[in-house]
Amino acid sequence: MAAELIVPPFDVARYPFAHPIRVRFAETDAMGIVHHASYLPWLEEARVALLAHGGHDYAQVHSNGLDLAVIEVNVRYRQAIRFGDAVTVHTGVGEISRTLLQIAYLLEVDGQTAATGVTSHACVNGEGRPMRVPEWLLDLGEGATALRG
Amino acid sequence: MAAELIVPPFDVARYPFAHPIRVRFAETDAMGIVHHASYLPWLEEARVALLAHGGHDYAQVHSNGLDLAVIEVNVRYRQAIRFGDAVTVHTGVGEISRTLLQIAYLLEVDGQTAATGVTSHACVNGEGRPMRVPEWLLDLGEGATALRG
Amino acid sequence: MAAELIVPPFDVARYPFAHPIRVRFAETDAMGIVHHASYLPWLEEARVALLAHGGHDYAQVHSNGLDLAVIEVNVRYRQAIRFGDAVTVHTGVGEISRTLLQIAYLLEVDGQTAATGVTSHACVNGEGRPMRVPEWLLDLGEGATALRG
Amino acid sequence: MAAELIVPPFDVARYPFAHPIRVRFAETDAMGIVHHASYLPWLEEARVALLAHGGHDYAQVHSNGLDLAVIEVNVRYRQAIRFGDAVTVHTGVGEISRTLLQIAYLLEVDGQTAATGVTSHACVNGEGRPMRVPEWLLDLGEGATALRG
Repeated sequence: MAAELIVPPFDVARYPFAHPIRVRFAETDAMGIVHHASYLPWLEEARVALLAHGGHDYAQVHSNGLDLAVIEVNVRYRQAIRFGDAVTVHTGVGEISRTLLQIAYLLEVDGQTAATGVTSHACVNGEGRPMRVPEWLLDLGEGATALRG
Repeated sequence: MAAELIVPPFDVARYPFAHPIRVRFAETDAMGIVHHASYLPWLEEARVALLAHGGHDYAQVHSNGLDLAVIEVNVRYRQAIRFGDAVTVHTGVGEISRTLLQIAYLLEVDGQTAATGVTSHACVNGEGRPMRVPEWLLDLGEGATALRG
Repeated sequence: MAAELIVPPFDVARYPFAHPIRVRFAETDAMGIVHHASYLPWLEEARVALLAHGGHDYAQVHSNGLDLAVIEVNVRYRQAIRFGDAVTVHTGVGEISRTLLQIAYLLEVDGQTAATGVTSHACVNGEGRPMRVPEWLLDLGEGATALRG
Repeated sequence: MAAELIVPPFDVARYPFAHPIRVRFAETDAMGIVHHASYLPWLEEARVALLAHGGHDYAQVHSNGLDLAVIEVNVRYRQAIRFGDAVTVHTGVGEISRTLLQIAYLLEVDGQTAATGVTSHACVNGEGRPMRVPEWLLDLGEGATALRG
């Protein structure tokens, strides 16, 4: 569990997949910008879309008794995001092993990097017990879902 | 399921129980006030505290396979609530039958009524199937947890 | 402020506009279904999309110092919604006057009515003070954004 | 902005302040545990309580036109947290300079470390423009609000 988090690339071209988010008014706060906690469900939505892009329906995966438990998250907020902004979450699998899966994110608004992030995951079964990362998930570390370069 | 919602009393003295809420900054929005969706988890927290006041630990109830599914909610927002406000949620059981349970709420800030609400609940088991309201829940309609008068 | 809430139609054909929602895992709870509070940001997102459909960018409206404050909300939860479900929020303006605007919602999953709702709104300025509903908003009560029939 | 995040101490005794959280059912997800995004508002609530412990009312600070914008967050989820758990957020100021403020957190449930985290903040004014960290905030790096040892 002690693996170092990867550093999410700044080069958008290295991400294999892009997921659009439309900011909800409910996600803003009294500073007039999107609250920092609101980004995590966006990363999760992008992650689920990345899995779908790789051929895996996460709702089905979850029903089958496997979950990608979040064991670490890191987000760098670089430019405030506002209601009405069109956010693109560039996403890709960074590191994957028999015990851990890391996913990198770059959030872009109007061609600017608004935030970067990484999530690290362990596989758990329906009772929350750790499982080895299955073969089909290991495959995410290559091809259509993997960070390039 | 077609029962009319009760009207939550405006008289604070009719509520048997009061639950304090401290507003989180995360609950505000870009209008500078608490977002309307943030009230629902407050009502839920007050409801759980009301059950505890009546001698029932909802975490235990849930573990035992009974849930109070929300089947209807109504909230009237009367005065905006802001970050830093001390909110008191006055709470009480309004109506209860073999199939439905209604709970009333009055949210008070600085002696003013900021909002009122009602939630209506059905009992479901761990698979989400409807159950009859058990005897111990029916008892909530009287005494320490019931609206007075 | 004391106007009765309208009853949202059950007939999907009466709604002028449909907005798709993809359920987020973050929106579920330990009952295994979508938490009841998660619906309110969906209604809000559908409402904003309805305004856009009527030619009005709510982010712009908000920047210009007008907000549609929520003064009442009612939701009936009829069928549980789950992670992975494709939800369509049918939406339309129901009632509109110089002081109040009501919007009706029908949430559909797989051709079934999962929930219905109504929100009632007052116009407020940037300081939260009530304003008369402006002419362009009154127009929402007719044509492309109004409930039919 | 490129400062390294501090490592939150594992020794509870090093934290000057403890803030209790009661888990809301709304904060759980379909894995039956608290959703990882729900921790961020807890850290924020603990941070606000830490400031109050140091003699500063954050609602007042915000009204006066100063905000502690979050520029980075890191959370390590070590043990799942469940509805009904009594969570204590141990909190302290770790690093502080003219441009940045770092706060460390240790979340404890039943004497076990459930999670650790760090948030890094910059001061911004009401328009979101960066400001120097004021003298009174610099003082948080010592005494009643600072990590010990």
